[in-house]
Amino acid sequence: MQITILGGGGFLGRKLAHRLAADGALDGQAITGLTLFDLAAPAPVEAPFAVRCLGGNIADAEAAKAAVPPGTDVVVHLAAVVSAQAEADFDLGLTVNLHGTLAVLQACRALPKPPRVVFTSSVASFSGGQEARLEDDARQMPGNSYGAEKAAAELLLQDASRRGMLDAVSLRLPTVIIRPGRPNKAASSFVSAILREPLLGLETELPVPEEFALWICSPRRAVDWFLHAMAMDTAPLGLDRGINPPGRSATVGKMLSALEAVAGPEARARVKPVPDAAIEAIVGTWPASFTAERARRLHGFSEQESLEEIVEAFIADDLAATRAERGL
Amino acid sequence: MQITILGGGGFLGRKLAHRLAADGALDGQAITGLTLFDLAAPAPVEAPFAVRCLGGNIADAEAAKAAVPPGTDVVVHLAAVVSAQAEADFDLGLTVNLHGTLAVLQACRALPKPPRVVFTSSVASFSGGQEARLEDDARQMPGNSYGAEKAAAELLLQDASRRGMLDAVSLRLPTVIIRPGRPNKAASSFVSAILREPLLGLETELPVPEEFALWICSPRRAVDWFLHAMAMDTAPLGLDRGINPPGRSATVGKMLSALEAVAGPEARARVKPVPDAAIEAIVGTWPASFTAERARRLHGFSEQESLEEIVEAFIADDLAATRAERGL
Repeated sequence: MQITILGGGGFLGRKLAHRLAADGALDGQAITGLTLFDLAAPAPVEAPFAVRCLGGNIADAEAAKAAVPPGTDVVVHLAAVVSAQAEADFDLGLTVNLHGTLAVLQACRALPKPPRVVFTSSVASFSGGQEARLEDDARQMPGNSYGAEKAAAELLLQDASRRGMLDAVSLRLPTVIIRPGRPNKAASSFVSAILREPLLGLETELPVPEEFALWICSPRRAVDWFLHAMAMDTAPLGLDRGINPPGRSATVGKMLSALEAVAGPEARARVKPVPDAAIEAIVGTWPASFTAERARRLHGFSEQESLEEIVEAFIADDLAATRAERGL
Repeated sequence: MQITILGGGGFLGRKLAHRLAADGALDGQAITGLTLFDLAAPAPVEAPFAVRCLGGNIADAEAAKAAVPPGTDVVVHLAAVVSAQAEADFDLGLTVNLHGTLAVLQACRALPKPPRVVFTSSVASFSGGQEARLEDDARQMPGNSYGAEKAAAELLLQDASRRGMLDAVSLRLPTVIIRPGRPNKAASSFVSAILREPLLGLETELPVPEEFALWICSPRRAVDWFLHAMAMDTAPLGLDRGINPPGRSATVGKMLSALEAVAGPEARARVKPVPDAAIEAIVGTWPASFTAERARRLHGFSEQESLEEIVEAFIADDLAATRAERGL
C-alpha cells in the first residue's frame, strides 16, 4: 500500500506519518511507501518502508502529479492556507485551497486506479455561531474565505467520487487542540495558545470571552479519524462524502479549568483576556456544536477524550519538542 | 447604467437583451451601454443605447476583463456548459462553469465599484428526486457535474460578496420551458422538445414516464427574475446569496395536457415514449419541487403563469423565429 500525505510537513501530517511508521500497515495491509509533500520538502520520518520527501506548490499540476505517483492507494490532503491567512490574502487562499485541491483531483484522476482521498475540510465551512447545534444535513454557509474554498473543494471531490475518478472522504475537522509549536495564522490559533503557552510558562492572550464555545478535537483523535477514513468502506456514504466527525463542544472556560486541573492555578493565571474583534468576527460564525450522528453511528468515527486528557496528551506527546523548537 | 450579459448569445441572454432594449432603463435608471458576450460574438440588438458585442472564452482572464469594462454596474452571468455536456466532458464543464465564473469574479473585483452579479445557478445543484419538496435552507448535494460546478461557483461568489468584491445574487433556475430553436445538450432538453417539436409539426421522444415531475419556469418569468435580481436590495439576503425562485412543479403529463388544450390532440400524439435511462439518471436526481418561500415572501420574485399560458407564450414569442431558424 502506497500513501501520500499532502501537507506532510505540518503538525497533523507529521503525526500521521509517525503513526503510519509505527504501525507499518493500514487496515491490515502492509505499507510499502510513503510520500510526504509540503511547500518545503518535509524532514524524513524513520519507517519500515520507503519514505519520499518532496517540496512544491500543490497548485502546480506537475508538483501535484509528482506527489501522487502511479501506484498511490491513499492520499491524505492536508495542504492548506489557514483561515486568517486566507482571509488576509484572498488570492493565496483561492490558489492553495481551491486550485490546489483541483490539482490533486487531476493528479488522482490520472492514476490507473482511483485512490482514496481523505480531504481535510473544516468546521469553518459552516455558519451558525454560538447557538448552533448542526445536524448532519446542515448546509455549508461559510462566513470566511477559507471555509468557502473548503466547501467548494468538497463539492468537486464529491463529484469526482461519483464519477469514479477518486474515492473521497471529506472530514470537516473541528478546531484541533492543542497544536504544538508556535501560534499560527489560523483565526483559531488562540484556542491552542491558551493551553500551550501557559504549559510553556508563557503568558498569552484570550481574544474571546470565557463562555465562548468551540467545536474541538484532539490531535490523537484527528489522527485516528484519518486512519479510519483512509481505510473505511465508502459505499454506505453514497453521494455525500462529507463527514462531521464527533468532536466536542467546549467553552474556553472549561478548557482553562482543565488546564488548571492538570497544571495548577498559576498556569491558568498566564491567560490574559484581551478582546480581539477581528478574531471573534471569524470564529464567532463557526458553529459551536454538531450532532455528528452519521459519523458516530453509521461510520464508526471515535469519540473525544476528556479535556483533562487532551491537556495531559499534549504534555506527553508535544511539550518537550515544542520547548526544544522554541528554545525554551 | 452599464450592463453586461455573459452568454448574451444564448436563448435567455437574447431575451433579456431585447427586454432591456425595449425598456431602455432598469429600475428607473437609464441604461447607457450593454455588452453582449458569448463564445462567438452575439448578433447586435437594436437599442436606444450603445451595444457592444464580444466573442471569447469566459475562462480566459483577458476575455472576462474585456467583457466587464470599468463602469459596469450589473453583470448577468449566463455563460455555461449545460448539464449533459458537462457530464460528457468533465474538463470542459470545469473550465467554463467553475474557472469561467472565477474569471468573472476576478474581472468584477478589478472594477472600481463592485458590480451586481446575477449568477444563473440551477435546480441541478440539488438532489432529492421525485419525492422532494425542498426548503430554502436545503443543502446542495448535486448528482451531476454541472450542478457541482454551479454550487461551487455559488460558494465563491457568495464569499466575494461578503468581502465586498462584488454583489451577487445566485438564481437556481428551474428547467426553463419552452426553449426555442433546436434540442441542445442539456439533459432536460426533452422537457422543451415535447412541447416545441409538436408545435412545429414534428415528432419527438419522451425519455421519462408521463408522471415524471419537474421544477419548471417560463422564459418570460426567468427574464422577469433577472430584472428583479439585477436591481433588488441585497442587504436582506445577508450571507446567503442563493435564491430558489418560485418555479412550478409539473408532471410531463400535465405539460402534455396543456399542449393538447392549446394545440389539439394531434400535437400531443407527436410525442412518442422512448425511455432513456441515461437522461432519467440525471434529471431523476433533481428535486421536483421547492417551497421557495424566501424568494416569494421576502424578495418579491414573481410567480409562474399557467402551463397553457406558457405554451401560448411560446407560440406568440418564439414559434415563428424557431420555424425560420430551422427552415421549417
